[in-house]
Amino acid sequence: MYTNNLFKNILVIGGNDAGLAAASQAKRVNPDLNIIVIESGKYISYGTCGLPYYVSGIIKNIEDLFVYSAEFFKKERGIEILTGHKAIELDSSSKSVVVKKNSSPDTINIDYDKLIICSGASPITLNIPGIHSKNIFNFWNVENTLDVKKYIDNNHPKKAVVVGGGSIGLLLAEIFNDLGIEVTVIEIADFLLKEYEPEISNIVLKNANLKNIKVLLGSTVEKFLHDKNFVNLTSVKKGNEKIDIETDLVLMSTGIRANTGFIKNSSIELSANNSIKVNSKLQTSHLNIYAAGDCATVKNRITGKDDYVPTASNAAKMGRIAGSNAAGGNEIFPGSVKTKVDNIFGLEIGKTGLNLKEAKQYGYNTIKVVGNYPSHAKYLPGAENITTIVIADIKSRRVLGAQMVGKDGVGKRIDVFATAISSELTVDEVYKLDLSYAPKVSTVWDPVNKICGKAVLELKNKKF
Amino acid sequence: MYTNNLFKNILVIGGNDAGLAAASQAKRVNPDLNIIVIESGKYISYGTCGLPYYVSGIIKNIEDLFVYSAEFFKKERGIEILTGHKAIELDSSSKSVVVKKNSSPDTINIDYDKLIICSGASPITLNIPGIHSKNIFNFWNVENTLDVKKYIDNNHPKKAVVVGGGSIGLLLAEIFNDLGIEVTVIEIADFLLKEYEPEISNIVLKNANLKNIKVLLGSTVEKFLHDKNFVNLTSVKKGNEKIDIETDLVLMSTGIRANTGFIKNSSIELSANNSIKVNSKLQTSHLNIYAAGDCATVKNRITGKDDYVPTASNAAKMGRIAGSNAAGGNEIFPGSVKTKVDNIFGLEIGKTGLNLKEAKQYGYNTIKVVGNYPSHAKYLPGAENITTIVIADIKSRRVLGAQMVGKDGVGKRIDVFATAISSELTVDEVYKLDLSYAPKVSTVWDPVNKICGKAVLELKNKKF
Repeated sequence: MYTNNLFKNILVIGGNDAGLAAASQAKRVNPDLNIIVIESGKYISYGTCGLPYYVSGIIKNIEDLFVYSAEFFKKERGIEILTGHKAIELDSSSKSVVVKKNSSPDTINIDYDKLIICSGASPITLNIPGIHSKNIFNFWNVENTLDVKKYIDNNHPKKAVVVGGGSIGLLLAEIFNDLGIEVTVIEIADFLLKEYEPEISNIVLKNANLKNIKVLLGSTVEKFLHDKNFVNLTSVKKGNEKIDIETDLVLMSTGIRANTGFIKNSSIELSANNSIKVNSKLQTSHLNIYAAGDCATVKNRITGKDDYVPTASNAAKMGRIAGSNAAGGNEIFPGSVKTKVDNIFGLEIGKTGLNLKEAKQYGYNTIKVVGNYPSHAKYLPGAENITTIVIADIKSRRVLGAQMVGKDGVGKRIDVFATAISSELTVDEVYKLDLSYAPKVSTVWDPVNKICGKAVLELKNKKF
Repeated sequence: MYTNNLFKNILVIGGNDAGLAAASQAKRVNPDLNIIVIESGKYISYGTCGLPYYVSGIIKNIEDLFVYSAEFFKKERGIEILTGHKAIELDSSSKSVVVKKNSSPDTINIDYDKLIICSGASPITLNIPGIHSKNIFNFWNVENTLDVKKYIDNNHPKKAVVVGGGSIGLLLAEIFNDLGIEVTVIEIADFLLKEYEPEISNIVLKNANLKNIKVLLGSTVEKFLHDKNFVNLTSVKKGNEKIDIETDLVLMSTGIRANTGFIKNSSIELSANNSIKVNSKLQTSHLNIYAAGDCATVKNRITGKDDYVPTASNAAKMGRIAGSNAAGGNEIFPGSVKTKVDNIFGLEIGKTGLNLKEAKQYGYNTIKVVGNYPSHAKYLPGAENITTIVIADIKSRRVLGAQMVGKDGVGKRIDVFATAISSELTVDEVYKLDLSYAPKVSTVWDPVNKICGKAVLELKNKKF
């Protein structure tokens, strides 16, 4: 059992983006701190978002995704990292975490003065008959990735089913397809990437079809049928129709849930998607316990409400801020505008702020404007349309959300909107922003200006 | 002579970005207006920034750069455009402009109720012995472009001198070089692109040299020596050194000045670089006369002061706003943050806000922070460093300016800064902005976040 024999002990639960950012920052703020990070898995400090590119073969060695080793943290930063150590219970009254070592049946207790929970999230396992099988995979961490890759390399599957038409599911569907596997995507909603507006989702669907990826929308898996230990048929329900799909490989990507089971007996308050409720300093309802990353709530900067926004960039920022504050700092996490971008099917797809459904849920009276604008001057090669959407509040005229899809030039334009939304700019203001123009980079009025100009016009012409 | 026989006459001087935007918008606001546009040149409505790509050969027909014809404006928008009509004097007391037709020795008077001056700017002609020659060219409009192209096609020059190391000069230097012409650039300042910080300019210089383009900094042309009507030697002074350069072609790109000679006898107030002083509605000191584009002052949004920022995107915005207001609208031009981007030598080079020199001139006590950050995740191919600079006010912590150079991914990141500067964000706020991340698009902390994080750290560590 680790004993608390130093001046100040910070225990960090979780050894990836948020946890390691927290530990590193805490040590920077106060080098005298004794910092331990426990990580349930075998691997730490890797580029999670790069894992699909190991399956695709662009990244040849999984080690290329590893940023720092536990030895590096020990030697260079004075931070001890214990892999294969899983938090199984929090005893906040005695400031102690019960930890199970993978290698041993016993548990140990690790005491802390300050605790930073960065335990992440895990894929939700749906209750589908036959779901436990040697060729059904999640795709979330290094272990999953190695399993998928090994299975493909050894078994040469011909037909794959991807359950879930979100970012991860679609990216893996594309990669499987590129590897010569016939792919069917099963999505319960009527749209792919359902946080996007239909105009965007439809373009993504069209591009999936162009790649000969079959997509079943409004569909659920009824059961997986097995031949020995392997699924060989996926039975799908689409409306009243039943469809049986020959299957050599299944990838489940149906959402995630915060890893907060180990605190269920504590009085720490939870919020959206089982995530740990935090204040702007990233303190939980116990002020000496912090939370950051996929296990924690994120303040939605537009609504001011708790939200669940499990992105790597939020995790990194929150981790750094939680670490700073746990070590005695006084940093504020301003929250997130839910910015994201994906590269799928040769498209760059991005969004920030609220979508129309969310805006309505939060009580905004909105307009939504859609436009198609070239990414750069049409007289130069390579100009491709960017489908651009802006959602604005009619009363305040503030931009509430923006979405884009195109061949390129999307992500950093979405960031212009993210900045504008964070600054509470109106469509009138964004319309007139002084954005960069050169024929290879944009048009004289950037698509960001143009779509807001269209919104201004619509607000003028319509009576609300 | 045109007679003022309709309800309301708007005369627009200038038939490119600003002028045509003004005319079109005025007509949209009030379709009953009688609108005439006079243009001194032969061509209207073309993509000025695309002209270099006609010289390079990427654009095969100059017509591909023409957007709308005079016939289009007449038929579709009810706007009359008179090309080859040059304003030579403004008589504001009688609300009339004296106009000289190219085809005739006579002048005509055109009356107006509202006048919108969008007369643009012209290259400055330096007083260098021998500067008037058949193989010395400016590069500013369609006529110049056709002249340069024709000269190259007919004469196959082997050696070119470009005088002026700004955006246009360097882009043409690159194009000449790509056409197999040996190029020497003569720049009076000690840096190329002198509105940039030295760290950026030095990278541009290095890339010029990599292309075997010779650059003489701190240098001036003493004289051009002629063989018949053609320059064959350029005599350059660099410090105490004299350098003679064999020359088959000279491109002059040493700055521009607002075309405001024709109002010299009026009482319209001028400001920076001879440009016409305007208020936020783009009215001149005569309230029925508006000005927009390269002939007008632009409010610097950071300093609140008059500035001269002759970009196509400012011209388009100002034109539209001036047109709207002249027709009875009530639109405000918020000003410019001096955003620009260029694609030269395989680099994307961008800036927004104040550079260090300007910040000091305006009395700011600043920090300047420089960083090098990959454009996207390093484990994927094509990640290249972006050299990133932020300049901030120490007291308010506001971002005052930002500059970047890299292979790509610069322009729209500069726009994030442009939006942040327009919103008066601090380095602390930009550091924590929720910007988009995917491995092909960015890093978990975007370079924009990172450089501001570095500034925050520097502000913390230093005593000011």
